[in-house]
Order: sequence, then structure tokens, then C-alpha cells
Amino acid sequence: MAASFCPPARLLLGPGPCNTAPEVLEALSRPTIGHLDPAFLELMNQIGERLRRLFGTSNKLTFPVSATGSGGMQAVLANLIEPGDPVLVGINGVFGVRFAECARRLGAEVVEVHAAWGEPLDCNAIALEASRKRFKIIGAVHAETSTGVLLGSDGIAKLRSACDASGALLVLDTVTSLAGLPVELDARGIDATWSGTQKCLACPPGLSPISLSPRAMQVIAARKTPVTSWYFDLSLISKYWGSDRAYHHTAPINMLYGIHEALGIVFEEGVDERFERHASAARRLWRGLESRGYELLVEEKHRLFPLTSVKIPEGVDDVSVRKKLLENYDIEIGGGLGPLAGKIWRIGLMGQNANSGTVDLLLHKLDEVT
Amino acid sequence: MAASFCPPARLLLGPGPCNTAPEVLEALSRPTIGHLDPAFLELMNQIGERLRRLFGTSNKLTFPVSATGSGGMQAVLANLIEPGDPVLVGINGVFGVRFAECARRLGAEVVEVHAAWGEPLDCNAIALEASRKRFKIIGAVHAETSTGVLLGSDGIAKLRSACDASGALLVLDTVTSLAGLPVELDARGIDATWSGTQKCLACPPGLSPISLSPRAMQVIAARKTPVTSWYFDLSLISKYWGSDRAYHHTAPINMLYGIHEALGIVFEEGVDERFERHASAARRLWRGLESRGYELLVEEKHRLFPLTSVKIPEGVDDVSVRKKLLENYDIEIGGGLGPLAGKIWRIGLMGQNANSGTVDLLLHKLDEVT
Repeated sequence: MAASFCPPARLLLGPGPCNTAPEVLEALSRPTIGHLDPAFLELMNQIGERLRRLFGTSNKLTFPVSATGSGGMQAVLANLIEPGDPVLVGINGVFGVRFAECARRLGAEVVEVHAAWGEPLDCNAIALEASRKRFKIIGAVHAETSTGVLLGSDGIAKLRSACDASGALLVLDTVTSLAGLPVELDARGIDATWSGTQKCLACPPGLSPISLSPRAMQVIAARKTPVTSWYFDLSLISKYWGSDRAYHHTAPINMLYGIHEALGIVFEEGVDERFERHASAARRLWRGLESRGYELLVEEKHRLFPLTSVKIPEGVDDVSVRKKLLENYDIEIGGGLGPLAGKIWRIGLMGQNANSGTVDLLLHKLDEVT
Repeated sequence: MAASFCPPARLLLGPGPCNTAPEVLEALSRPTIGHLDPAFLELMNQIGERLRRLFGTSNKLTFPVSATGSGGMQAVLANLIEPGDPVLVGINGVFGVRFAECARRLGAEVVEVHAAWGEPLDCNAIALEASRKRFKIIGAVHAETSTGVLLGSDGIAKLRSACDASGALLVLDTVTSLAGLPVELDARGIDATWSGTQKCLACPPGLSPISLSPRAMQVIAARKTPVTSWYFDLSLISKYWGSDRAYHHTAPINMLYGIHEALGIVFEEGVDERFERHASAARRLWRGLESRGYELLVEEKHRLFPLTSVKIPEGVDDVSVRKKLLENYDIEIGGGLGPLAGKIWRIGLMGQNANSGTVDLLLHKLDEVT
């Protein structure tokens, strides 16, 4: 009963988590200190600064929520939405569906604009909806982890204009983009976002970096009803992450050591260099797959670098290939979700795994098991 | 900017976190694997079994919520409460206040029965309220971390009878008791609970073990409205922790390595031996403090073993003593909260810190700085 758990040494090439950087693993194991210790408060300051730099923002309220990526979504939406609020969500995958469902449960009147899974969002259709009615939020997923589709900077600009026309806040899920693709909150006029740590940051899951613009904070300040979630009430939490340092809940100390280290690694490499490395590894994977006759789900100009969706060839068994990769070679890749289950594999090249050696190894092993 | 964080080596004798066991720190740093990896699913099974054993329950829904202790509270209450539900909360400290506030924000009609902070709950007064009206939940804090007061087994039995009379579920906060004091959910008829990892389990903060009885699960199944929080919807999460293994959110993998190891340590020592060690260290602290003329806030029969509240003597400055302990000797103790701020210190002897050597060291250093 009391035995320790020794995880197998996997190469994590699915949709996340990816392999945690060794320096981050080491940081997690440093001695726990108190959540009000002056040394810890200084660490929080540094995490805030580093996250602002990576998000490309001067937003004061920028910190990691004490929950996983979906918990960050819950926190952001629970604070921005009051019952009856009109919310417009562009959907082309699981995480768009989840965004809409989360908003609906909070009482929002949600209008959904769907595009096929694997296709880009139809930003013109979203803009048309927004021109007809005032929305409080226009939301979308920056990097749709279920399909590998990017919402490009042109698309974001169109959504920003739609928000201006409709008086809405622009809210994006940046779980799979942060640290692998430019997010640039301020330059692009993104009002609120949540991300995760287990994707391109190469940190274990368990925290959700979020950021809210002053405009979003005004919306929260103007609420007529209290946030129904005490745990995720940003007005309370911001007193701990802000200069008051008022105790709300006990921060997940060691996980915060981890994200601090992971952010340090990003800047040590250089943000642009890191983006380029993710792009270059992805392109190598695409060429390798295409040369073997695989078809990719997403058109090249809409593809994510950190996550590639490849169609499973006719006659190849999804589960048995993934099982062989895992059991024979300790390599994890992801299957499809929802309507894409059994039809695609999802291959993540995130964090330290975005390199040519890893791509070549995967292609070689994939050859062996198919 | 890219420097690593090196935490000071503190002795954590406040209200939690306590020092993380070295084996747990090591477990945190093991390589991350996928949240659907067969090896990880087996780890989840073991964590469930270990938690059931420690909670003293056969409740199927027993697992660590992906958030801190207060997140577990949020999860349990968000699932049990619908707008308009009558909820009765006994309050004698910060965490009772928080329980009531969390329920109220979820739309509950909350009746509060107050006792003075530092005094035990008035379970007779709670029973009287319960005899007048049907409540959906009767709730209290098992180990009130803000004062050091225990809700004893007699008190829990009275609340259980009150629940039977009122048709209510018995819901207890066991954040500071789990692994330091007997919790015994099934024997005591406790229907739902949340705990934390950073107290007597000696794991970093970041997870909240919860458990719900079949009766509580029936209440959830009979909801008329969906849970407003998608992230904390136990009907969805239980499909991941149950046999379906359906993806909901990405579990905080490395933190789960930590709790698995921490639970292993508890059973290796022996649960009863661990409780006795906490009791014996606390009694040594009490005798040591009393022999120095300190007065303890709580009457002995209502005192917690893991956390002791001591009145700050007339003329002694709260902040300067705590600052000296921290800066000169790397020892953290806690201050008072709310009406007890500046009036008490809170001394935690939790996990590995519950031992005579630590007690003697603290008393010696306290002598030096007062």
C-alpha cells in the first residue's frame, strides 16, 4: 500500500502535457515556504512580471489561477458574466464548445457561430452577428487543441473590430499558444485570457495564467451581483496578488516555483527564438508526414505549430498504433476528440520537445508501428 | 530576469503549509506523464483507495479536486446547493464564516449559529434551529484553523442527529484535521467533506481531497439546475475519476505524485501512531508555553492537536516577534485573523513537524525573541 509511484519515462508528444523541463522538475522539489513569507511575495511579483512580459501586456491583473487551464476559463468567465449577459462564441472544436458551455452555465445568453472542425473560424460571420446586437463578450480559442487550428492575427483583428462595433470585450483561450506562439494581448486588444502551464511552457498542469485588461476590470467592478464562486472571485484574489497581500486561499507554493522557473527558461532562450523553434520543428514534422503519404487535417496557413492533426490513413487502427507507440517506445501521441475520434492523431511538439531530433524519432517509430 | 528562485529553508510552524516531507518533494520532481496514461490511471486508483482509507469511508466519489482546500469547498458546495436551498452553518472562526459566505453566493438561504471565536460550537443551538425547519445542509468546521478549536466527536454526533431530524446532509470542513486527527466519515455519518494537502499530510498546497456519500450523490443527481461551475461539476469530473476515464480537465499530474507519496508515508507510519504523535507534540508545546506563563486561547478539551492558539502577552509586539523568529531563525509561526489579529499566535505542529525536538527548538527561540 505504501509503495512510491515511479512513472515510466515517456516522450509526451500528445496535446499536452508535454515533458516538463528538467529544471522545472527540480524547482518543484525545492522546500515549501509560507504563502505570506516575504521571499514568497517577491516570487509572486517576479511571476507577475514574467507573465506580463510573455503575454505582451501591462495588465495589472496577470497571475496564475490556482487550478488547471479550464479553471482559469471558469475564473475569467465567472467574473465577467452575469445572468442574462449576451455572449458570442466562435466555435470550431472542443474548446470552443467548452467556452460556450461554461458561459451558458453562468447564465449567459450564448450565440454560437460554428465552423467545421479543422477549418478556421468564420470571423466574418462572427462580425455579422456582432453588428446586429450588443454583446458583452466575443470569445474564441486562439489555438484549438482539439483540431490544431490557429486563429491568426487577421482573424483576431476582425474579432477586435467586431467587439468595437458591439461594445464587447474580446476574450481568448490561449492555453496551447502561450510560450509557443505570439499572444500579444495589448497589441491585439485582447481583454481577457486564460492559459495553461502544461503546453508550450513545459511545466506540469495545475496552474492557469490569466490576464484581464483595465476594461475587463471595469466590467467586473460594475457587476450588479456578486460572483457566485467564492474561490474564483477575482476581486478577492487580486487583493492577495496585488499590493494588499490579503490572504484569500493558500497559494500552491511549489507549483509556483515551477512556473517561475519555466518562465525563466523561456526568456533565457528568447521568446522569438522559442517561437521559431516551435515553427521549425512543426514544419519538419509536416514535411515528414506528407512525404510518407499522410494527409494533414488543417490547411497549412491555419495550422498550429505546437500541435499538428494528421488524418489516420484508411485501414490503420487508431488505438493499436497509439498503444504500440506507448508500450514499445514510451511515446505518447493523442487521439481525436468528439467527431474526430478515430479519424485523427494529434501530435504535440511543445516546450523542449519542439526539436528536429524528436521529430525524426517520432517519424521513425511511426514507420515501425504502421 | 531569468534567475531561479531559491527558497529560504524555513521551519514552518504556522497554520499551514507545514514543511513538505522530503520524500514528497522528491516525488513532485518525477517526470510528468500523460493524464490518460495507463500508469497514471493506476496511480489515480491508488490515490482513491488511500484517501478512502484515511477518510474512513467507502464513498466511491473520493478524490483530490484540482485546486486548493478552498477550491474543494467551492466544488462540494457548488454541487450540493441550488438557489434558495436552506443551509445551516455553525460558525466559530474564519473558516465557518467562509463556509457560510460560499453557500450564500451560491444562492443558499443561510442561517448562521455563532459561537465566540476560541469557544466550541454550540451544537445544542444548532440542533434547536434544525428542529424548527428542514435544512438541506448542516455544516461546520471540524478543525477551525483560525482559532485552534476542535469540533469533537460528541459535537459531530449531535450535528448528525440534528441532520436526521431536519433531513439534512452533514457537511464538514476537514482541512486541518485530515491525517492529524481521526476524521471517520462513515462511522460518524459525515455526508460530504473537503480537506487540504498542506496541513497534516505534509504535502504542498494545491489539491483538495474531497469525499461525498451516496446520499450526497443522490442530492446532486436530483438537482433541478445544472451546476453553474463547469470546472467543479462533480458529475463531469467523476467520469474521469470513475471507471469511464472520460477527459474533463487535465489533472495536475505532479501534484498527484505528491499526494500519493504523502498518503503512503501516513500508512507507513500508521494512522493511529501519526495521530498520537500529533497529540504528544501538542501536549509538550502546551506544557512548555504554560510553564512560561503563556495563556492558551482554547480550553484544553476543545483544543486541536495540529494547531495551537496562544494569547500574545500584554506588552509583547506581535509582528516584531514573528519577524525576529523568521529573520533570525527561519521559523514561521502564524498571527491571528479577523478579531484575533494581534491577539494570538497560531502555532502549527503538523506532519513531520509534530515532534518533541521541534517543540523544544521553538520554545527556546521564542524565549530568545520575547
